[in-house]
Amino acid sequence: MKLLYPLICLFLALPAWAQDEAPHGDPVAGVVLSLAIILVAAKLGGHLATRIGQPAVLGELVFGVILGNLPLIGFHSLEYLKTDASIDMLAGIGVILLLFSVGLESTIGQMLQVGASSLLVATLGVIGPFALGWGVGAWLLPEHSAYMHAYLGAALTATSVGITARVLRALGKSQSKEARIILGAAVIDDVQGLLILAVVSGVISAANTGGALSYLGIGLILFKASLFLVGSLVIGSKISPRLFSLASRLETHGVLLAVGLGFCFLLSWLASAIGLAPIVGAFAAGLILEDLHYRDFKDRGEHSLEKLVEPIASFLVPVFFVLMGLRTDLRSFAAPGVLGLAAALTVAAIIGKQLCSFGVLGKGIDRLSVGIGMIPRGEVGLIFANIGLTLVIAGERIVDQNVFSAVVVMVIVTTMMTPPVLKWSLERNAKKAG
Amino acid sequence: MKLLYPLICLFLALPAWAQDEAPHGDPVAGVVLSLAIILVAAKLGGHLATRIGQPAVLGELVFGVILGNLPLIGFHSLEYLKTDASIDMLAGIGVILLLFSVGLESTIGQMLQVGASSLLVATLGVIGPFALGWGVGAWLLPEHSAYMHAYLGAALTATSVGITARVLRALGKSQSKEARIILGAAVIDDVQGLLILAVVSGVISAANTGGALSYLGIGLILFKASLFLVGSLVIGSKISPRLFSLASRLETHGVLLAVGLGFCFLLSWLASAIGLAPIVGAFAAGLILEDLHYRDFKDRGEHSLEKLVEPIASFLVPVFFVLMGLRTDLRSFAAPGVLGLAAALTVAAIIGKQLCSFGVLGKGIDRLSVGIGMIPRGEVGLIFANIGLTLVIAGERIVDQNVFSAVVVMVIVTTMMTPPVLKWSLERNAKKAG
Repeated sequence: MKLLYPLICLFLALPAWAQDEAPHGDPVAGVVLSLAIILVAAKLGGHLATRIGQPAVLGELVFGVILGNLPLIGFHSLEYLKTDASIDMLAGIGVILLLFSVGLESTIGQMLQVGASSLLVATLGVIGPFALGWGVGAWLLPEHSAYMHAYLGAALTATSVGITARVLRALGKSQSKEARIILGAAVIDDVQGLLILAVVSGVISAANTGGALSYLGIGLILFKASLFLVGSLVIGSKISPRLFSLASRLETHGVLLAVGLGFCFLLSWLASAIGLAPIVGAFAAGLILEDLHYRDFKDRGEHSLEKLVEPIASFLVPVFFVLMGLRTDLRSFAAPGVLGLAAALTVAAIIGKQLCSFGVLGKGIDRLSVGIGMIPRGEVGLIFANIGLTLVIAGERIVDQNVFSAVVVMVIVTTMMTPPVLKWSLERNAKKAG
Repeated sequence: MKLLYPLICLFLALPAWAQDEAPHGDPVAGVVLSLAIILVAAKLGGHLATRIGQPAVLGELVFGVILGNLPLIGFHSLEYLKTDASIDMLAGIGVILLLFSVGLESTIGQMLQVGASSLLVATLGVIGPFALGWGVGAWLLPEHSAYMHAYLGAALTATSVGITARVLRALGKSQSKEARIILGAAVIDDVQGLLILAVVSGVISAANTGGALSYLGIGLILFKASLFLVGSLVIGSKISPRLFSLASRLETHGVLLAVGLGFCFLLSWLASAIGLAPIVGAFAAGLILEDLHYRDFKDRGEHSLEKLVEPIASFLVPVFFVLMGLRTDLRSFAAPGVLGLAAALTVAAIIGKQLCSFGVLGKGIDRLSVGIGMIPRGEVGLIFANIGLTLVIAGERIVDQNVFSAVVVMVIVTTMMTPPVLKWSLERNAKKAG
């Protein structure tokens, strides 16, 4: 592996050379060089994270943090990546594809089946962190508005159970009751988190344009968001099978992928047009589409939509995670209170989710493991923080550099702590039972 | 299929609504809506083209022309697509992936094997159209510079044999001597076309910054371009197996795709950094990479790089073709001489390639079919024309809207005429032989 290091140094120095280069070149050359750097960083980070038993996405994030803080050791040639419009746009498409993939993994039917436990676990797991996060904001950042405190609470709500699922699988517990409750709750959790995001963002937008925080206004946003979700799920499920059956008659290559992506992009835009985040639409699109809808394509031997989207997501999603890392300025931790905020947010995120244990109905279920399994935050926390960077109220950004860095720390710690703690808890329970 | 038409009209009207919408939304929402429109247009166009026995890419191009000329019937909401920076960038990445895929389909070894006939056929097939194209420019556009005439010649050189390959396959002639000569020549042809593009673009850039058209300068560019191609092929072939063997030890998902794309992007940027078009680097990267280099990945059951790049290309390449169509302004054909220029260029492109027949060595080979099989232009002509749109000399664009439209007509006609004419020629020869 030693050959890698000189290669990497050479690689990282290229943009400096690029900036000295003749500006008459094709601008796409600069973009693909940035992409090459990001892809290599993502895979090296993913590798190292996997080696120490962590999810790859954590390594991508941490390698992004490293690249973004190279100026601390006097290396400035990657600074442009933080604000590059093309990379930002590609990361935005990456997040849409990520939520689309997450949605594709579950179906509406599965969501309806997971039952009372999951719904209760998810709801408590949203209320707990939301309240605690709001409280941490009010306590540590009293000079900021209540909007900002609410946003902080919202950023703590959504669970990212990819890592939990992997630990459960490694311990042969994938089919356990605990696993089904956690995975079911995580999907409901995503929906609830997106609803909260819609409400909080909507209230902030309204307040910024002079409107007041009326209950009617909140109700209206919640109604709009629910209507969009339920409406797109109901209408989408009716239209989707016909759409794909119609599309399957098109005699050209790549129709399934094009129609699937087109559907996802259209709903993303629609969500944005009615004031929600585009990811809400992408997630809804993923939930709606089921293998059954495009069986005409599968019958003639084409790959499933999930398989087709995978390489595109694996190309663009790391751009998002590395970019989030890049935007985490380690110097912000020198600012007074930021480390404290990061610690308090992390504790709020962990304790808040322990409320989930009370949502487990029935006996003989390992409640502690359910609460621990819901801890990791991952992508959704980052997406919230990133959207917060663009929201402004009374000339003040809802999420500033310091808060963004604190959220990144919260995501990293909650994700890293889950595998060992969950393993300990599951084994403790097995001993008790055995 | 009738349900499609109201759906399409609704769809096309969305951007008008989008522009009235609140500007505070996520900018990525506008980009994905554009992508959805482009993907649907591409697949509908591809379908109709396939139905009438034409290559899908032609339908994508023609549907782009239709979308781009909707203002003629008073519909203006898609006008922004022609100049949208994000779409232009995504199309640029699409072209790089297209040339990478083309390169991946052949190996350096195959190129060295195709033998004297292919080399001779390719060389004559580049000289003929280049000279005739230059001549057409000098004849019909005498008010423009010689640089522009040379560029016009260069745009006629490269063959796009995808359509020829498909006709040969349909007639059971894939393994014939004619097929091998044509396919071999097309690859060499691509290399020669890229070299000519490098020389002509370089000379134009030099002339624009005050330099003169010296033989030394041309020699230098040709030397640089050859050095890049040969150098990257030689060094790349040495490094690539080690790079992939090293990368195969990385324990995370999507490494093969990331390293393959990273390699392609790095060479694209390197080509651009020494003054060549990024596509030259992408093509070289594709030629270098062979299945053998990443057998460690394949041994553990991963898909080949070609298969992994396919969905990404099938997402982004149509963006390029539709955009090229969008930029073709049908009104330019009303300008005096444009239809004549289109006709003359088309004739030059067809006749120029008939020189190929003289390059066929050996007896009993259907020379006429070889010449006809080399006629289609397709993507490379469009790429040249598109690069020409960005080249300026003495304040005048090398390729203006009128010339661009004429080149698009040449591409469409040469591609459409090949299947029926080639079929006639092959059957005529079979009758003679039988």
